[in-house]
Amino acid sequence: MAACIFCKIIRGEIPSMKIFESEKTLAFLDIGPLSRGHSLVIPKFHGAKLHDIPDDQLSEVLSVAKKIAIAQGVEDYNILQNNGRIAHQVVDHVHFHMIPKPNETEGLGIGWPTKEADKGDLTKLLEEIKSKMSKM
Amino acid sequence: MAACIFCKIIRGEIPSMKIFESEKTLAFLDIGPLSRGHSLVIPKFHGAKLHDIPDDQLSEVLSVAKKIAIAQGVEDYNILQNNGRIAHQVVDHVHFHMIPKPNETEGLGIGWPTKEADKGDLTKLLEEIKSKMSKM
Repeated sequence: MAACIFCKIIRGEIPSMKIFESEKTLAFLDIGPLSRGHSLVIPKFHGAKLHDIPDDQLSEVLSVAKKIAIAQGVEDYNILQNNGRIAHQVVDHVHFHMIPKPNETEGLGIGWPTKEADKGDLTKLLEEIKSKMSKM
Repeated sequence: MAACIFCKIIRGEIPSMKIFESEKTLAFLDIGPLSRGHSLVIPKFHGAKLHDIPDDQLSEVLSVAKKIAIAQGVEDYNILQNNGRIAHQVVDHVHFHMIPKPNETEGLGIGWPTKEADKGDLTKLLEEIKSKMSKM
């Protein structure tokens, strides 16, 4: 996509602090980090959301994120991939954050508004999901 | 691991609302959901943190998470994997959350405390990471 900032980084049209590159994956430091070492791992395949990316273009992503964590020696961190503005996605090219969590104030802040689940509704939902997945 | 609750689910010793199972991957509904459809995808290989899991045990995780999102027809969602208590990890067996974000109040809450990054420090860090990754 001509206007996509991450596609421009992939094509080398704008600079990045590149950590890793392979045929289908690119990783670079986030220049607006939540903590030191905050990195992004992206499939080169352009798609806005996870469900837009073919499986084979996703296969390296987690191993690259893992290696970046190991290379930094971080023990506590979050892997996050956001889909949609309401879910905090800003750039419309799938990207996985590896965000070190060095202390309470730096790194990702998480709100966890758990609700009581209705067991009957969960069972109904489960059957719906299984039925749809069996046809994929 | 005998005492791990997710290993017990994998072995069928405690029930789960199972969505998908293959040789190396299991997915089930979270029974304490942040939103309707909140699901977990786990490698069967036991390890507390992402960097404990061999690459080949991670290869299916994202494609399964993706299929669960598609099966539910959700457009806005977060993929999250937490490492360490400080990073909000509760069960010490690697698990990826697929959390639909239907509105502002339900689903994952995100705090994003961006800091100004020091360009010189980023450059130094980049060289350190690249040096370590080149030896992996």
